[in-house]
Amino acid sequence: MKIAFIGLGNMGLPMARNLMRAGHEMVLYNRTASRADELKKAGGKVAATPGEAAADAEVVITMLADDAAVESVVFGADTGSNGLLATLKPGAIHLSMSTISVELAQRLLQAHNSKGQRFVSAPVFGRPEAAAQGKLFIVTAGPSAILKTCEPLLASMGQKTFVVSENPPAANVVKLSGNFLIASVIEGLAEATALVRKYGIDPQTYLDVLTGTLFGAPVYSTYGSRIAKDNFEPVGFRMPLGLKDIRLTLSAAEKATVPMPFASLIRDQMVSAMARGLHDSDWSAFARVAAENAGLPSKSPK
Amino acid sequence: MKIAFIGLGNMGLPMARNLMRAGHEMVLYNRTASRADELKKAGGKVAATPGEAAADAEVVITMLADDAAVESVVFGADTGSNGLLATLKPGAIHLSMSTISVELAQRLLQAHNSKGQRFVSAPVFGRPEAAAQGKLFIVTAGPSAILKTCEPLLASMGQKTFVVSENPPAANVVKLSGNFLIASVIEGLAEATALVRKYGIDPQTYLDVLTGTLFGAPVYSTYGSRIAKDNFEPVGFRMPLGLKDIRLTLSAAEKATVPMPFASLIRDQMVSAMARGLHDSDWSAFARVAAENAGLPSKSPK
Amino acid sequence: MKIAFIGLGNMGLPMARNLMRAGHEMVLYNRTASRADELKKAGGKVAATPGEAAADAEVVITMLADDAAVESVVFGADTGSNGLLATLKPGAIHLSMSTISVELAQRLLQAHNSKGQRFVSAPVFGRPEAAAQGKLFIVTAGPSAILKTCEPLLASMGQKTFVVSENPPAANVVKLSGNFLIASVIEGLAEATALVRKYGIDPQTYLDVLTGTLFGAPVYSTYGSRIAKDNFEPVGFRMPLGLKDIRLTLSAAEKATVPMPFASLIRDQMVSAMARGLHDSDWSAFARVAAENAGLPSKSPK
Amino acid sequence: MKIAFIGLGNMGLPMARNLMRAGHEMVLYNRTASRADELKKAGGKVAATPGEAAADAEVVITMLADDAAVESVVFGADTGSNGLLATLKPGAIHLSMSTISVELAQRLLQAHNSKGQRFVSAPVFGRPEAAAQGKLFIVTAGPSAILKTCEPLLASMGQKTFVVSENPPAANVVKLSGNFLIASVIEGLAEATALVRKYGIDPQTYLDVLTGTLFGAPVYSTYGSRIAKDNFEPVGFRMPLGLKDIRLTLSAAEKATVPMPFASLIRDQMVSAMARGLHDSDWSAFARVAAENAGLPSKSPK
Repeated sequence: MKIAFIGLGNMGLPMARNLMRAGHEMVLYNRTASRADELKKAGGKVAATPGEAAADAEVVITMLADDAAVESVVFGADTGSNGLLATLKPGAIHLSMSTISVELAQRLLQAHNSKGQRFVSAPVFGRPEAAAQGKLFIVTAGPSAILKTCEPLLASMGQKTFVVSENPPAANVVKLSGNFLIASVIEGLAEATALVRKYGIDPQTYLDVLTGTLFGAPVYSTYGSRIAKDNFEPVGFRMPLGLKDIRLTLSAAEKATVPMPFASLIRDQMVSAMARGLHDSDWSAFARVAAENAGLPSKSPK
Repeated sequence: MKIAFIGLGNMGLPMARNLMRAGHEMVLYNRTASRADELKKAGGKVAATPGEAAADAEVVITMLADDAAVESVVFGADTGSNGLLATLKPGAIHLSMSTISVELAQRLLQAHNSKGQRFVSAPVFGRPEAAAQGKLFIVTAGPSAILKTCEPLLASMGQKTFVVSENPPAANVVKLSGNFLIASVIEGLAEATALVRKYGIDPQTYLDVLTGTLFGAPVYSTYGSRIAKDNFEPVGFRMPLGLKDIRLTLSAAEKATVPMPFASLIRDQMVSAMARGLHDSDWSAFARVAAENAGLPSKSPK
Repeated sequence: MKIAFIGLGNMGLPMARNLMRAGHEMVLYNRTASRADELKKAGGKVAATPGEAAADAEVVITMLADDAAVESVVFGADTGSNGLLATLKPGAIHLSMSTISVELAQRLLQAHNSKGQRFVSAPVFGRPEAAAQGKLFIVTAGPSAILKTCEPLLASMGQKTFVVSENPPAANVVKLSGNFLIASVIEGLAEATALVRKYGIDPQTYLDVLTGTLFGAPVYSTYGSRIAKDNFEPVGFRMPLGLKDIRLTLSAAEKATVPMPFASLIRDQMVSAMARGLHDSDWSAFARVAAENAGLPSKSPK
Repeated sequence: MKIAFIGLGNMGLPMARNLMRAGHEMVLYNRTASRADELKKAGGKVAATPGEAAADAEVVITMLADDAAVESVVFGADTGSNGLLATLKPGAIHLSMSTISVELAQRLLQAHNSKGQRFVSAPVFGRPEAAAQGKLFIVTAGPSAILKTCEPLLASMGQKTFVVSENPPAANVVKLSGNFLIASVIEGLAEATALVRKYGIDPQTYLDVLTGTLFGAPVYSTYGSRIAKDNFEPVGFRMPLGLKDIRLTLSAAEKATVPMPFASLIRDQMVSAMARGLHDSDWSAFARVAAENAGLPSKSPK
């Protein structure tokens, strides 16, 4: 297939590489053009603007950091050049894989529909290593005929694709809610660990009880280990990005009139983490707020 | 060993049965005496009071519903007969397996110490079926020499024993915190499910995404399935007992000056569940509060 | 003075009337032009666009419903005509009296500065009746020389002006925080009233105790009476507007890294109020959430 | 009237003094007997035990620090001497003015009823200075005939008496809920003040806006001034007592199945205040938690 791939960051680059290996004809765009060098050598074309990248594509894939970046490449605002919306052919597909707001997904859907183009959401769960190995989990939503076209592309990038709805923004809701659930695990573990530390229990011993009984999921061992050691290095996902995802969850929930008190509480803890100087830490470091609010000293530097 | 076993409820009876099968000499006590019939036929002695049961024992095991029941059999208050504290021999062990408050565990420790008796906490994770199969998870705390004596007994009742501290009440802290973490999962899933339902996503499809990706632990599939179906039958653990455990967690946390805002929030949701008529439901039915607060109708009767 | 007044709603019209009575030369603009008829008869000029209204003014006053309305009249976006930013003379003042976000106030400040124009924030506390009587409370912030120019105008519209900072957006922070504090009073009264009702105490008797002892402020008697009667008519300020102000408070707080857990909780209660069908009720009707969550029936229709 | 007065602390002593001045025949009891010296010189009798004090009384008044103290003087447990329950004559009245739990008030009511004695609750709002001037606010509940008998006594101690119910524990609910509402004001002001400080607004200027507009009640000026100065001296009511009252409010609410999320949140802030070393501070110092969670430094020592 003729594919335009926009956004060659830590996630996008390995994803694009996997697509190229699968034999697709690729046109690449990244704001910092040098990020495209590797794939250019491997035979990819490099476009000067998102609009140029998308002009000839059957499918244009976006994998960018946030709403603003996606708005910029789609609508071309503030860039002085065409966005992909202006050039994508009728019937061609925009496959949006970034973690964006539900509201933006809804606007993109309408914008593409009004041009006779197609829009599908397919955000991912997984870190850069998983992207490199084609082991991402992909959550997608869209009309089934269009999903069918995208299926082989998704299969090249992920280990499993979950179809959750015919309505594209639904996939974004699922993605955001997943990050909310991870944050819930972090806060739960943070409070419980503060409690057991105050009763003289070794946090690692405590974590072994949890993961050895009812809580044997990766999310508990990964974050539990950080909390037990009170060490949140290395930074996989920065605090402001984590806070942004909780904010987008709350915003989507407010629009649908769903109160989410756990999410509100997590947001407050993250805001306090920012106030305590954890701005550049991994998002999971907001677990320190529960410990510090209980008067427990930090074991490692900020 | 000579063992007194006090409390032959849904959990205690199968636990006592496993000990008897392991060849121990058992004296049994239960408030409703007929619950002891089965084990009597199998060779157990039945005592008329907790004090009588404990008089000759090397280890007395208590497995009862709540603080009040344990206080009654230990101190004999309000019963007109001796509790086990009065008759247990110096050097003999009280192995307390009930889910009780940290405060009561501390009082029991002091009371037994002042009589030259020994005290160990060993609460369990698992439902009656796990107890029947000797598959409980046991969390224990106490001086290591005493734990060594108890080890073969615990091995007859559980699949794994976790030692968390030399200080007995620490095991009760861990047990209570475990129920808090389960309740955190329930509330997190309840809010996320309310959100996705409002966006037209099938809750079971959503749960499949969660358990198929990062949340592949039994606690997610078990409670997630109930929430997805909005059906909390059968009742494994009643709402007031669940609320009691969260209250005891908060009480232990307050004594140790640990704020636990998630636990506070869960308590509020459970209180609202009681106000909505869910008093006799399984404790996980407090997930309905998040749904109803979002204006979602219940799918099944209360 | 030559004044342009933009926004002749329930608040703006009586405010503009008071200015005209004070002898100022007025040019008026309102989206629905007929709202200006009364003041036109009294000698005011009516402009066809915000830009036309501001062209000749020493001070342009805006009193509009929300951020979007203010953005539209200032920047002229989506209107096909000039906003006031394009026509206001260097040195002239934009006196912004609407309840807007801190973020928009900051953007307006920068935009006007870059044109050599002046910007002052002066939001108000008070209902339309207070506006009619010139009895508003006005909270203002800006450079003192500019405030001095505005002083007589503010004195014609309000009973008292509070200067809180040299930095204009500070006044918007104070205004939003005031609405947050009112909502705190409502939620506190709602929970306390639910409690005493459950213990058989008459809510009006209870309110008399409160206002007769420590809580003798208008905010307690006004909202307390609505809660005691469980009747939130008439609608002074609609629920979505109240929710908006709490959202803007949380947003301003997040930017300044201030966790506000009370505000988060109030937001959740308001979202639940919307989910329960209270969309068109007065904002204080979110007090019903506390009552209904306690299983108390409503006394009056929604 | 023949009155026994039990509890001559900072509140009880001036209250008893006012009763004596009104001409009643007084028998006094205090655990530390020397606290009775002043009133003995003025003609009061001093009893050696609560039981002795109550033996001859028409009305026995208790004004003590907490549930444990009241239980001790009523039931005589742990004291080796009779409590007042054992000696009070049938038909005589126990007028309970302490801030105690709703649960204890219910137990006292039953205990007195079973002896043919009468029980009335009449807790107070006000500090020691108000007690000295006979300016307390008194909230009372009980059968009207009994309240009529107590009326002149209450009039000697307070400036106003509010009757809230025929059921005595209702007065304790109202008293506890009042302290909850004060704490709500403190938390609301603490969050709002943290917000405005971050935007560079002087906290005293901010408070002047509040008290000069909608929030002109003593509770705002008193606590607002402490928060604005970040100085919580002198200690009028210690943190653990404040925490106790919120805990009793939550406990009464839980029994009546009323979720009170504001109260839960306040409790968490107070627990965190204790963890931060504010154990011996005035209860209002929990306002520091909101400030510190926003990264604001304290202005005064702990």
